[in-house]
Amino acid sequence: MAEKVVGVAVLGAGNIGGAVARAIVEDGDAIAQRSGIRLQLIGAANRSGLAQGGAEGLDPDVITTDGIALIDNPDVQVIVETLGGEQPAASLMERALAAGKHVVTANKEAVAKQMPSLLAAARDGEAGFLCEASVGGGIPLIVSLRQIMASNRIDRVRGIVNGTTNFILSKMDAEGAGYAETLKEAQDLGYAEPDPTADVEGFDASYKLSILASMMLGRWVSPDEIDRTGISGVSADDVADAKQRGGTIRLIASATRDGDSAILRVAPTFVSGDDLFSRVVRNFNAIEITGDRVGPVWLHGQGAGPAPTSSAILSDVIEVARLGGEARVRVTG
Amino acid sequence: MAEKVVGVAVLGAGNIGGAVARAIVEDGDAIAQRSGIRLQLIGAANRSGLAQGGAEGLDPDVITTDGIALIDNPDVQVIVETLGGEQPAASLMERALAAGKHVVTANKEAVAKQMPSLLAAARDGEAGFLCEASVGGGIPLIVSLRQIMASNRIDRVRGIVNGTTNFILSKMDAEGAGYAETLKEAQDLGYAEPDPTADVEGFDASYKLSILASMMLGRWVSPDEIDRTGISGVSADDVADAKQRGGTIRLIASATRDGDSAILRVAPTFVSGDDLFSRVVRNFNAIEITGDRVGPVWLHGQGAGPAPTSSAILSDVIEVARLGGEARVRVTG
Repeated sequence: MAEKVVGVAVLGAGNIGGAVARAIVEDGDAIAQRSGIRLQLIGAANRSGLAQGGAEGLDPDVITTDGIALIDNPDVQVIVETLGGEQPAASLMERALAAGKHVVTANKEAVAKQMPSLLAAARDGEAGFLCEASVGGGIPLIVSLRQIMASNRIDRVRGIVNGTTNFILSKMDAEGAGYAETLKEAQDLGYAEPDPTADVEGFDASYKLSILASMMLGRWVSPDEIDRTGISGVSADDVADAKQRGGTIRLIASATRDGDSAILRVAPTFVSGDDLFSRVVRNFNAIEITGDRVGPVWLHGQGAGPAPTSSAILSDVIEVARLGGEARVRVTG
Repeated sequence: MAEKVVGVAVLGAGNIGGAVARAIVEDGDAIAQRSGIRLQLIGAANRSGLAQGGAEGLDPDVITTDGIALIDNPDVQVIVETLGGEQPAASLMERALAAGKHVVTANKEAVAKQMPSLLAAARDGEAGFLCEASVGGGIPLIVSLRQIMASNRIDRVRGIVNGTTNFILSKMDAEGAGYAETLKEAQDLGYAEPDPTADVEGFDASYKLSILASMMLGRWVSPDEIDRTGISGVSADDVADAKQRGGTIRLIASATRDGDSAILRVAPTFVSGDDLFSRVVRNFNAIEITGDRVGPVWLHGQGAGPAPTSSAILSDVIEVARLGGEARVRVTG
């Protein structure tokens, strides 16, 4: 099979971006053999410009602090964005897309908050734009949702999409411990950030639900439209009560169709012991997609971490390299 | 969005093919709105040539007994094959593919046994060839496996891929009943065929594993290479013993990598109560795909029936209509 050579640049060579860059270098032969696409790492930008931290092990010559120069480099066809946060990530992606560069991102906050301008830039530049890694880490969730949507009306999407809160809730269940001490333990183990607000108050889950609900409804669903409750109010007693009733508590993000709209909610929710969601433990993620034809389809896997997340990013890179502007998140009514 | 009009013919308008044909007619507007592809039903072939049985409700004018004429009809771009069985299904698909018609099939036996000649015909005709519905019914399994394979070495695929045997085994577990009486009950309810051999002796599961293992290994894995044991030797005592040990018995199909090859097996297998597979009941299917980067990804859903199966077929039809020869099952080393 003739190989197609594709230049890739990574913006944000931290834990995730560094893993993507290393995989392109170290695993390029295997990827080319399986896909027919030969990825070439043109450059990787981080704050220090050094092959340190998440960029450890990369050739120092490919590391730069100048992300804009990578976007404008004519050898780069695909931009991988793993900076995180709304800005400057969204502006950089828009610049790349408008210039006809394909963009692959893991950045749920930027996609959820700036979806209309990102998709407009992708249309203008006739560029591919994929974000599989932004929801459910390595789980092939968005590709599954797109596949099911082609032939189904989606009636509901619900899931456990935040690993930190699931780690805390499943540990509270297993050990009968309180919220504060379990959060502390999760922080000590690196499963929760020093400032845990984005996870425990449900913001992260609401960004992910915004992306899924936008695809489901065919219009941008802003995170502000989502009724959001975090887990900081969940007590050891609440979890014990749920256990008494034969179930447990999970942070469930759900979009339930209501005509042309949907009821959108992120909240700690009782799940019965018969429900597959009660079996989701530690920092795993799971999502159920219900279509009018296919019924409920349930997916489970690792929702975060460099290896699973880089898996989803690399698969997206291969797809945009193969299909170009055809490979684009669809949000059309 | 400008619509692309695509002519479709269905070979085998029974329960599944009839559901596909009706969906094209009744749901064409919604599908076009979501996908930009306007499907047109050019014809549907069955044995009687009448709008009866699975073809009930279709316009009698589109029903024919002449499948070859549909393949050769210049208005047809996509052939949906739901005849079942190895021949004449495989020969008809080869004829269509060689002529440049895209083919979508639900026929695991024909794909498993005739894969090399089907893929050769697709290459010759530069035609798309997809078979999502042939394994796991409506579960977006093959699309997920393809997505994960782009960026992972697949180390294992294992799953419950036969609904009939899972119905029997989970009923034996729930009711403590024996094999023979439970099989009889499954037959009375329509979950097992009058001659149940293909399901209960593991042939059906071995065809499905052949397709998954071929994708995983990048070469045709014949069903004959699979070590196959059915469930007819599973007794009420075996199931009770498994329950005693905190688990249950399921018919597990597995391909476990061993260098460039794999250990291939279909067999009744003990699964512990912690294992998600122990939660798969009734006629549901589930498959776990383990990649070196992504870890284990687990999918669950309805593995059979007209609605879920037609969902997978229709999604494949949309994909071949959109991508043509790029939309082809990849079996390349």
